[in-house]
Amino acid sequence: MKIESVDLFYVRMPEVLDIGDGSQDGLIARVRAGSFEGWGEAVASPVTSIASWIAPMSHSGCHPVIDSVMGETLDTPSDIARIARKVRSSSFYGIIQSDLTFSGIEIALWDLLGHAKEEPIYKLLGYKNAERKLPYASVLFGDTPEETKQKAVTMRGRGFSAIKFGWGPYGRTTVEVDASHVHAAREGIGADGHLMIDAGTVFGEDVDAAALRIPALAEANVKWYEEPVEAAAFSLYKKLSLVNPKVLIAGGEGAHNFLQAQNLIDHGGVGFIQIDTGYVGGIGSAYRVAQYAQSRGIQYINHTFTSQSALAASLHPFAGLKDSWMAEYPMEPKTLCQELTVNSIPMDSDGMISVNESPGLGIQFNTETVKKYLVDVEIKVENKVLYKTPTV
Amino acid sequence: MKIESVDLFYVRMPEVLDIGDGSQDGLIARVRAGSFEGWGEAVASPVTSIASWIAPMSHSGCHPVIDSVMGETLDTPSDIARIARKVRSSSFYGIIQSDLTFSGIEIALWDLLGHAKEEPIYKLLGYKNAERKLPYASVLFGDTPEETKQKAVTMRGRGFSAIKFGWGPYGRTTVEVDASHVHAAREGIGADGHLMIDAGTVFGEDVDAAALRIPALAEANVKWYEEPVEAAAFSLYKKLSLVNPKVLIAGGEGAHNFLQAQNLIDHGGVGFIQIDTGYVGGIGSAYRVAQYAQSRGIQYINHTFTSQSALAASLHPFAGLKDSWMAEYPMEPKTLCQELTVNSIPMDSDGMISVNESPGLGIQFNTETVKKYLVDVEIKVENKVLYKTPTV
Repeated sequence: MKIESVDLFYVRMPEVLDIGDGSQDGLIARVRAGSFEGWGEAVASPVTSIASWIAPMSHSGCHPVIDSVMGETLDTPSDIARIARKVRSSSFYGIIQSDLTFSGIEIALWDLLGHAKEEPIYKLLGYKNAERKLPYASVLFGDTPEETKQKAVTMRGRGFSAIKFGWGPYGRTTVEVDASHVHAAREGIGADGHLMIDAGTVFGEDVDAAALRIPALAEANVKWYEEPVEAAAFSLYKKLSLVNPKVLIAGGEGAHNFLQAQNLIDHGGVGFIQIDTGYVGGIGSAYRVAQYAQSRGIQYINHTFTSQSALAASLHPFAGLKDSWMAEYPMEPKTLCQELTVNSIPMDSDGMISVNESPGLGIQFNTETVKKYLVDVEIKVENKVLYKTPTV
Repeated sequence: MKIESVDLFYVRMPEVLDIGDGSQDGLIARVRAGSFEGWGEAVASPVTSIASWIAPMSHSGCHPVIDSVMGETLDTPSDIARIARKVRSSSFYGIIQSDLTFSGIEIALWDLLGHAKEEPIYKLLGYKNAERKLPYASVLFGDTPEETKQKAVTMRGRGFSAIKFGWGPYGRTTVEVDASHVHAAREGIGADGHLMIDAGTVFGEDVDAAALRIPALAEANVKWYEEPVEAAAFSLYKKLSLVNPKVLIAGGEGAHNFLQAQNLIDHGGVGFIQIDTGYVGGIGSAYRVAQYAQSRGIQYINHTFTSQSALAASLHPFAGLKDSWMAEYPMEPKTLCQELTVNSIPMDSDGMISVNESPGLGIQFNTETVKKYLVDVEIKVENKVLYKTPTV
């Protein structure tokens, strides 16, 4: 098959709030080849990413992504790997947004191939079985400790024995306020639940401020302390990992290629590596990180904060790994992401999840939703329209 | 002063060739505050970067760059640092192109501040004197070894005792062909000249292929072997640095923030760190890398392959460092970059260069050139024009 068309759709909520909630918009990719169609989703500023798709070439190392994808052959997983290498080798300087843009397209290529081969993606990756994972509810801290506790109680009531709190007020005021949120979360979830804390890089490069939060995290027996500092601050991650062996550090969602994730594992001292398939270059790249993590005895976790399609794309790369047994499960997405897919990844009666066994992603996009939330974009260069929102 | 306007201009040659020559287009930033004006240049895909300037916000960590710059106070260098932090903390997820986009704007902020304070930028950075640097001519390999040799002879004739060859055929065929180019370059430059080789990441992650080139580099007594592998492949850099202690490894132009450069120094075993001010986040970020390199006993080198304004912006951050005594000097820029500035950084009679002592960058942009090569761009979202090429 030849890749005949790639369409990018910018969807968003009628109102986008200035809060740490990535489910307010989305960049959807639809790929067509032969008689098949595949869909995927990038975690990326839609207009910036669309621009990197069609921007005029600057030089041999700064091609738009479209140059490496359109018209390419797509028959096997190795074709996807070849296309990914082409993107990397022709878009590596000056157009770094291309890593994110391609992530969504790459997922759509796998989805398409899965439909063509009538196999779920994890099987195309070489896994025999999809292991069940313990999903953790990923939610924002409440505005007050009481609200945080109530959220924990609610999530526990909905069947989650693992909950991650993040963003919101955390790291914005005092060590004491942060501690009270963490203790409230532990109270709400109960002594036997898995509790994780996500600082969302709030401390920037201030490793001391980040370290001051660790005693409370140890007291509350948190499973990990996520992204206390900037994603690329490996030496600070390493420092924090040595403060208290009871508090493991997690990170990796900022990795926009395999090598950055590898570097964080090698030099950051993380106990968990968290990868967003829609950010790291897609399923092939995420799979590579999962394999590397496994080889280094580190648990791989998906980073997913948006839709069920993003969740599916993030589960396949580590579906077959028994040792990586937890999965982030977005619990408070905006209606856009709730309505984006026709089906979802359901929780079993015992609170576990797994990828769906149907071909491709195992998740079907709802084209009516894409139409409903579609944003019209046009990019013209020298009066030539290089991009215009396509018809769904 | 308040930042009243920021204008981005996409300029390009009438024809852009698919070769490793970054001087074929440019993204120019003009900033106005009070009665002053500053100019800067990013090394970045212009249309993608313009999109990251105005893209609608996705969430609190994915603001367009404009949100962090317009209307901000600009009176001192610490204001620029504050604005840079604002960009980092509000554009860190999903809009990674913003690092590059801001680089050009940040340079323009320093230029403006230099005009307001009537000081060259290096003095605002705290350096007392601008040390003279030995410029090396940075040129592409010839298509044949004979052509490479001829280029070396020509550059030597123009007063360069240091020459770097890169890209072109290097790494594209056999070890022997590459060796013959390297030996030809050495022949052309003479035994006493400084010769450097830039592989332009041609070997990707193939560290063995990269290592096979090292014996010829040692024989030809090259000063450094630049970017043999992908920018983020720290462990491969480290490996290559241990192959032959005579052949030092250089890299760093791919760093789009301070931390990535720091990581390469800490974990990549490089002997030289090469930073493009128009890529790494601007002058403040480049200065930080220069100081860190100095503290680790590593030589800092500018990466500059385009205009004289880019050269000036790249010299200020390490102007006062005696130990970092070489500077990349672009020798084959396209007419766009030749004409882009009114003045230039001249070579002294003894072949040395230094920043100009006039206020700001010390380089004046030629607005007629910007007009001549200007590319018209329009980005519309929901029928609202978010960007339209401004008047020069």
